[in-house]
Amino acid sequence: MEQNIRIADMVPGQQIQGCYILKDIRRKTSSNGSPFLSARIRDATGEVDSKIWNYSGPLTAEDSGRVMLIRGEVTEFNGSLQFIIQRVRPAQEGDRCDIADLVPSAPIGTASALIEVREILASIEDGEYRSLCQAMLERHLDSFLTIPAAKSVHHAFRSGLLMHTLNMLRSADFLAGLYREVIDRSLLLAGAFLHDFGKEREMVRSELGLVTDYSAPGLLLGHLYMGAQEVSEIAHEQGMAEEKTMLLQHLILSHHGQPEYGAAVEPQCAESELLSIIDLMDSRMEIYAEAVSELKPGSFSGKLFALGKAVYRHR
Amino acid sequence: MEQNIRIADMVPGQQIQGCYILKDIRRKTSSNGSPFLSARIRDATGEVDSKIWNYSGPLTAEDSGRVMLIRGEVTEFNGSLQFIIQRVRPAQEGDRCDIADLVPSAPIGTASALIEVREILASIEDGEYRSLCQAMLERHLDSFLTIPAAKSVHHAFRSGLLMHTLNMLRSADFLAGLYREVIDRSLLLAGAFLHDFGKEREMVRSELGLVTDYSAPGLLLGHLYMGAQEVSEIAHEQGMAEEKTMLLQHLILSHHGQPEYGAAVEPQCAESELLSIIDLMDSRMEIYAEAVSELKPGSFSGKLFALGKAVYRHR
Amino acid sequence: MEQNIRIADMVPGQQIQGCYILKDIRRKTSSNGSPFLSARIRDATGEVDSKIWNYSGPLTAEDSGRVMLIRGEVTEFNGSLQFIIQRVRPAQEGDRCDIADLVPSAPIGTASALIEVREILASIEDGEYRSLCQAMLERHLDSFLTIPAAKSVHHAFRSGLLMHTLNMLRSADFLAGLYREVIDRSLLLAGAFLHDFGKEREMVRSELGLVTDYSAPGLLLGHLYMGAQEVSEIAHEQGMAEEKTMLLQHLILSHHGQPEYGAAVEPQCAESELLSIIDLMDSRMEIYAEAVSELKPGSFSGKLFALGKAVYRHR
Amino acid sequence: MEQNIRIADMVPGQQIQGCYILKDIRRKTSSNGSPFLSARIRDATGEVDSKIWNYSGPLTAEDSGRVMLIRGEVTEFNGSLQFIIQRVRPAQEGDRCDIADLVPSAPIGTASALIEVREILASIEDGEYRSLCQAMLERHLDSFLTIPAAKSVHHAFRSGLLMHTLNMLRSADFLAGLYREVIDRSLLLAGAFLHDFGKEREMVRSELGLVTDYSAPGLLLGHLYMGAQEVSEIAHEQGMAEEKTMLLQHLILSHHGQPEYGAAVEPQCAESELLSIIDLMDSRMEIYAEAVSELKPGSFSGKLFALGKAVYRHR
Amino acid sequence: MEQNIRIADMVPGQQIQGCYILKDIRRKTSSNGSPFLSARIRDATGEVDSKIWNYSGPLTAEDSGRVMLIRGEVTEFNGSLQFIIQRVRPAQEGDRCDIADLVPSAPIGTASALIEVREILASIEDGEYRSLCQAMLERHLDSFLTIPAAKSVHHAFRSGLLMHTLNMLRSADFLAGLYREVIDRSLLLAGAFLHDFGKEREMVRSELGLVTDYSAPGLLLGHLYMGAQEVSEIAHEQGMAEEKTMLLQHLILSHHGQPEYGAAVEPQCAESELLSIIDLMDSRMEIYAEAVSELKPGSFSGKLFALGKAVYRHR
Amino acid sequence: MEQNIRIADMVPGQQIQGCYILKDIRRKTSSNGSPFLSARIRDATGEVDSKIWNYSGPLTAEDSGRVMLIRGEVTEFNGSLQFIIQRVRPAQEGDRCDIADLVPSAPIGTASALIEVREILASIEDGEYRSLCQAMLERHLDSFLTIPAAKSVHHAFRSGLLMHTLNMLRSADFLAGLYREVIDRSLLLAGAFLHDFGKEREMVRSELGLVTDYSAPGLLLGHLYMGAQEVSEIAHEQGMAEEKTMLLQHLILSHHGQPEYGAAVEPQCAESELLSIIDLMDSRMEIYAEAVSELKPGSFSGKLFALGKAVYRHR
Repeated sequence: MEQNIRIADMVPGQQIQGCYILKDIRRKTSSNGSPFLSARIRDATGEVDSKIWNYSGPLTAEDSGRVMLIRGEVTEFNGSLQFIIQRVRPAQEGDRCDIADLVPSAPIGTASALIEVREILASIEDGEYRSLCQAMLERHLDSFLTIPAAKSVHHAFRSGLLMHTLNMLRSADFLAGLYREVIDRSLLLAGAFLHDFGKEREMVRSELGLVTDYSAPGLLLGHLYMGAQEVSEIAHEQGMAEEKTMLLQHLILSHHGQPEYGAAVEPQCAESELLSIIDLMDSRMEIYAEAVSELKPGSFSGKLFALGKAVYRHR
Repeated sequence: MEQNIRIADMVPGQQIQGCYILKDIRRKTSSNGSPFLSARIRDATGEVDSKIWNYSGPLTAEDSGRVMLIRGEVTEFNGSLQFIIQRVRPAQEGDRCDIADLVPSAPIGTASALIEVREILASIEDGEYRSLCQAMLERHLDSFLTIPAAKSVHHAFRSGLLMHTLNMLRSADFLAGLYREVIDRSLLLAGAFLHDFGKEREMVRSELGLVTDYSAPGLLLGHLYMGAQEVSEIAHEQGMAEEKTMLLQHLILSHHGQPEYGAAVEPQCAESELLSIIDLMDSRMEIYAEAVSELKPGSFSGKLFALGKAVYRHR
Repeated sequence: MEQNIRIADMVPGQQIQGCYILKDIRRKTSSNGSPFLSARIRDATGEVDSKIWNYSGPLTAEDSGRVMLIRGEVTEFNGSLQFIIQRVRPAQEGDRCDIADLVPSAPIGTASALIEVREILASIEDGEYRSLCQAMLERHLDSFLTIPAAKSVHHAFRSGLLMHTLNMLRSADFLAGLYREVIDRSLLLAGAFLHDFGKEREMVRSELGLVTDYSAPGLLLGHLYMGAQEVSEIAHEQGMAEEKTMLLQHLILSHHGQPEYGAAVEPQCAESELLSIIDLMDSRMEIYAEAVSELKPGSFSGKLFALGKAVYRHR
Repeated sequence: MEQNIRIADMVPGQQIQGCYILKDIRRKTSSNGSPFLSARIRDATGEVDSKIWNYSGPLTAEDSGRVMLIRGEVTEFNGSLQFIIQRVRPAQEGDRCDIADLVPSAPIGTASALIEVREILASIEDGEYRSLCQAMLERHLDSFLTIPAAKSVHHAFRSGLLMHTLNMLRSADFLAGLYREVIDRSLLLAGAFLHDFGKEREMVRSELGLVTDYSAPGLLLGHLYMGAQEVSEIAHEQGMAEEKTMLLQHLILSHHGQPEYGAAVEPQCAESELLSIIDLMDSRMEIYAEAVSELKPGSFSGKLFALGKAVYRHR
Repeated sequence: MEQNIRIADMVPGQQIQGCYILKDIRRKTSSNGSPFLSARIRDATGEVDSKIWNYSGPLTAEDSGRVMLIRGEVTEFNGSLQFIIQRVRPAQEGDRCDIADLVPSAPIGTASALIEVREILASIEDGEYRSLCQAMLERHLDSFLTIPAAKSVHHAFRSGLLMHTLNMLRSADFLAGLYREVIDRSLLLAGAFLHDFGKEREMVRSELGLVTDYSAPGLLLGHLYMGAQEVSEIAHEQGMAEEKTMLLQHLILSHHGQPEYGAAVEPQCAESELLSIIDLMDSRMEIYAEAVSELKPGSFSGKLFALGKAVYRHR
Repeated sequence: MEQNIRIADMVPGQQIQGCYILKDIRRKTSSNGSPFLSARIRDATGEVDSKIWNYSGPLTAEDSGRVMLIRGEVTEFNGSLQFIIQRVRPAQEGDRCDIADLVPSAPIGTASALIEVREILASIEDGEYRSLCQAMLERHLDSFLTIPAAKSVHHAFRSGLLMHTLNMLRSADFLAGLYREVIDRSLLLAGAFLHDFGKEREMVRSELGLVTDYSAPGLLLGHLYMGAQEVSEIAHEQGMAEEKTMLLQHLILSHHGQPEYGAAVEPQCAESELLSIIDLMDSRMEIYAEAVSELKPGSFSGKLFALGKAVYRHR
């Protein structure tokens, strides 16, 4: 009996016990009339079809997506692996299931990323912008470190928002220097840090931290509105100047660039224009990174939904 | 010397003294080298070219748009009227200048319109929606009674917002009955009443109450965002239920119907969909009313900027 | 043996005889080589899978959509109902099959709706418009009372056109009062009544009155053109004034509002503009009503083809 | 005194009497207070500024566009020609004013063009299509020979419609042979001949045959609808088969190719698709011909309104 | 045992040996555990499902699309034909497999088409254009005679490019005469001949000459760019005048008409405008021909991907 | 008599001699019949109206835009400066006219910018990309240092292309580090350096180095095509690998991002996607810089043609 073998490493014949996510659970009846359970098990490395023969236990479709302690055997069917479950129950404390093994996470160190974010925030020259950013960070610290940046499309993994925000802060820092004649560095950095905080309320997350759906406020109000509104509240609490409060809200409301991409207003100052471009750039680069990682050199992907086109991985 | 003759009634030869708006003021020099002032005078009935010969007084382009006490003579030049000003100074208290004579106003009685608005609000079944609407009315009563609904395009006159809102309340009331299976009357009426309150901060108004420009917050944040945000604040003060607060904001944020027409989000419930249609309908009907009033039966207007097409007045 | 149980009321174990529509008929062979028929039975309340084991009778895919007299038993398979047919033949006169039980109908009383339509037409002040409308009503009375307003999308049930037209007449009547300065009530009501008469030739209907397809003239000419043309013919027969004939045709040709939504010309007078908005409004409200009726409070639909977006049913 | 000198041939110093169109007439007052008339005179070869000093005669702006018998002298002002009128009165019968000298005409022989059109119509194999075309030709013969094809854009000169129709018949004849597997030659030729007959009612023409405006039916119904409707009437009178009548109407209604270019329906059969392409091709080639004729080799035009781009004349 | 029966002529019960393409090969396991091969066989007349029972031979999915020598029996399953393969191996020299029997070809004679192309090229008046065209023809002769014009959409069969080019040359020849005032015949014919030569590098072809995919240069550079570039190289080798070299490249780069259809620049001279229309026309007519050939008179196709609409075959 | 006073420093009463550009030259006649010349003089700091009274010399509109040696007096007319020219002749060698004083130049040091460009090119790791870039630089050195990046819109001044290219190289260098997992630094830097070299042939420049127009090849082929083609030629001369040659051309052809913005193909690899974003970013930032420099804090510009919207300068 092997323990917690990663799905990508499974081979037929192994007897395994470990923690996996059980998904797509469906109760079925075989041709001879006996009930069984069809499902898939997954961890951060992949997923595989699974069956529990002669099953009349308590699990139903409602349990899909939960972490289970599972024992069974790896077999092969029609040229693909199949995991035959012999025992299964929801994971409990004490089972030592590590979420990081089960769901994909951003390829960054959370702790060092947070240190770098804090350093950049501390470098914001304008005291009002700086203290507002720091207040937002402390208020949302837990979720800021773990939530994805999206349900799919790009950065749809644990700590995706942290990774996306850090990349944007780095670019904003560099570009504020390159375009210093027209860019207020403090405003741009504050906008880069704050632009996606509304995503926390926009998304419904599973117990594992992945986005399972958009929330009603997320769809009916949008994360731009909710983010701008919260920033406005804190700004008023902190007594920030009217003009600066307005500019921060403008950067958040316009960071999707164009109304047809979801911007509530169009960017109309240099910092909001640049912020919307940096956001586009980082999301595009991540989409390429995810798509290209699955391609052989010299080949094209299929048409990507997020870009409306196929992409090429060169040699 | 006649007093306060309306511009539409002026005829050559009249000696007139009265209150008029002096606009488009420009200092010029005649071919013989003497300085003069070129301007136009206007009241609610029209406008006419005007000159002050041999003028070296204090008025400059900066004074354009102010109310003046003016004395002079009506003449004719190249087939058009021209008003030769002999004396002019800014109007003062005691000059008995009535703003209602000087700028166009909505063709409704303000007092009776307010009574009707109040009656409709009182009929809102849901206590939370009703009290929020009544609070907003009292908070903004002065401006609600006088501001235009726009800088141009439609309802761009004193009390234009009141007229537009009342028409929409009437339609909402009727249509909530027609579509009662799918429409929550309280929500629709509240949305119809609240949808344009953000316009107060969106527009810069002259001392005469007309819109001279859009404000910086108006352009950088938009009246949808500002209106939704204020409603959200009051809703929280009044302890309104989360779902209702969200719905009111959704109706305001989506009332332009589509992102390319300025909606921050698309309508996604029956009441927001209907509200966006009622808003479109009332603005379109007012555009037609204003355009058609200047046409002869059986003729077309030129291409209207607000519609992108010409319109026909039938016989 | 129970008679004509509604599909929505079936429970396993019932022995039933009754009239149902047999659809999606397919001849198949079981794994043991014996032939059987796979189909679905439906009535106005729903539909359910169905099988005829060991069937070598005359029914083929060509018979799909016909009304049958059916006898059989309700069973359960894989958690869903299944109707095992023991006897089946096409319905005949004398079987007392009521079409109203089998296909969905508008939730209105046809007779009272017709009375209301007639009253509104009788109230049209202009004699020429009024008599043309009344002539069209008598000419198409049968189909006007029964045909759907569409193949799918909205009002795609028996008497859908009647329901849609009546709603529009009610709105037109109210709005002609609200916008009386710019709207000719007679013209608007006539347009609201006449706008969709071309649909009769646009659609191919089954013997049950539902739309099975669009006709060749429907696709190659469109119901706007066909409707306007017939109105023009009758107008000439009745000696209607040129201007009025032109206006009626214009309202019909433009009632889809924009060329990309199928309008042959754009609305260019106040009545055609308003008519196109009323039409949009009624179709949108019906789409919401149909979508929302299948949702739980607090949930979203999937993306609706007719709207290009999901819709929310609030609590 | 020279007679009827073409404007393109005028030189300063000439004393001239002749027929010209007087346009852009405006009554003015000179700086010394004396009244004069400012206008332009034109013929088919060009136009030139014109003045009548000390004029207090009966001509007003209303007379713009009429043919006048004019006497005067060619002078020069600020480097351009100016025609000083000494006598002017509306042309009368007996003045021997030839319209062909005054307005631009298609560069084709009307008589020979008509012969060719008749020959092509006579070659239509299908008797029903052929006789309908011939009936339409006789019914509209006068206007068909003289009206322009448009108010501006292309073929906006006398006999423009004849030239455009003949070119399209020639192309249709050739292409019906090239694509004979998929094209019904009779239908394509009939469509090419009939497609623009609705233009006669669409345009308001001056006494000189040029288009001065679009008519109310032209704007509210469109020439596609009016043309299809008349063809439908004649088809019914002649007892044409339903399918053919439908196809002819379809070709006319769809010949602008796409709804955003004014097509009432999209082309959906091979002949309507090809007809819309031939129409596009002939109008584009004429736009190029008119634009290029005013360019030097190796140079670009300004941006053409009709094409939305500049065009190049190569060497 | 019958030889090389065309698939369209197969009937159940035949024992057949012949050359077919084996496609969609998949290895499967039956319910009793024995391995079999599921595939389809095709020739130029159609395709049919196929099985090899108890197969453990060397063929895999990788062999899909190759020509095989096959022996087996025609049977029927669930109302459709099924070919049970008894023996199969890749075709070899000596098997007398004729590619023309296996893949669809343009319905023209290749030899006579080439003669006609050569005659038209010889008629080009301008010596520089003519010799460049002739040089291109000889350089690419083999592929020009056989390659398809596309992967799908239109002319996606052997010699499709030859057929498409010849049709366009014929139209160009006729239209250069009709529009001789504005069209340089030599330039138009040269453009029509050269416009699609870049397609050879754009497509990846199977050993049978059909397009299996687009190449990396095809997708990253496009056939317009590659074609223009090669023409430019030969033009420089032949010492063609700068202006003419520029014009030829312009015609090739712009022949898709609009940027959203893939044009690298918009047509800006009469010849490039006309060339883009001729290209559109020939591709549209071929799309209709292919779609209509599968329809019954009086019926519509489904929505065609290439046109975005359904098409009608009239009676 | 003062020498070479900058126009921004002129005050009424000065007697000045110096080099200026004479533009908008028009010959006119005063009301008393005497000829005079109306023009404007400009240098890099501004422009001012100018007159030469009683002028019958050789200058005409054709001389507009040339550098002149001018003597005259600064006066005031209608509140604006006016320069009364007393003597004027085209500048000659020996007049010591410095072009840098007369036309606007990029606010960078050309020499140091070139050094930085060379350093960045030297840092390109891939030898093939590096040597191609260096070859292009030497081949075009003179024009690369001086030409504008556009006729208007952005960087429309001397050395504008150098400034734009350097900024892009700096951003590309930084971003290649940030996105090193998906970006090939050598390819991105080579693309950033090469992307606009086709502009040299695209623009027609005056003797002063400003863009007066687009060239025929510029309009008919575009700078993307011309740039890619030249790079392809040099790549072949240098024996660069096929794949790399293709990628460089792809980056150049796609750097406008979308077909509607002029891209010949869409970006399809990470480097071309990023290059198109960097290009957009640098042009947008320069547009803001130029627009904002003319605004007061807290105010909006008019609608900018290049952006389709107004922009805000915050406080």
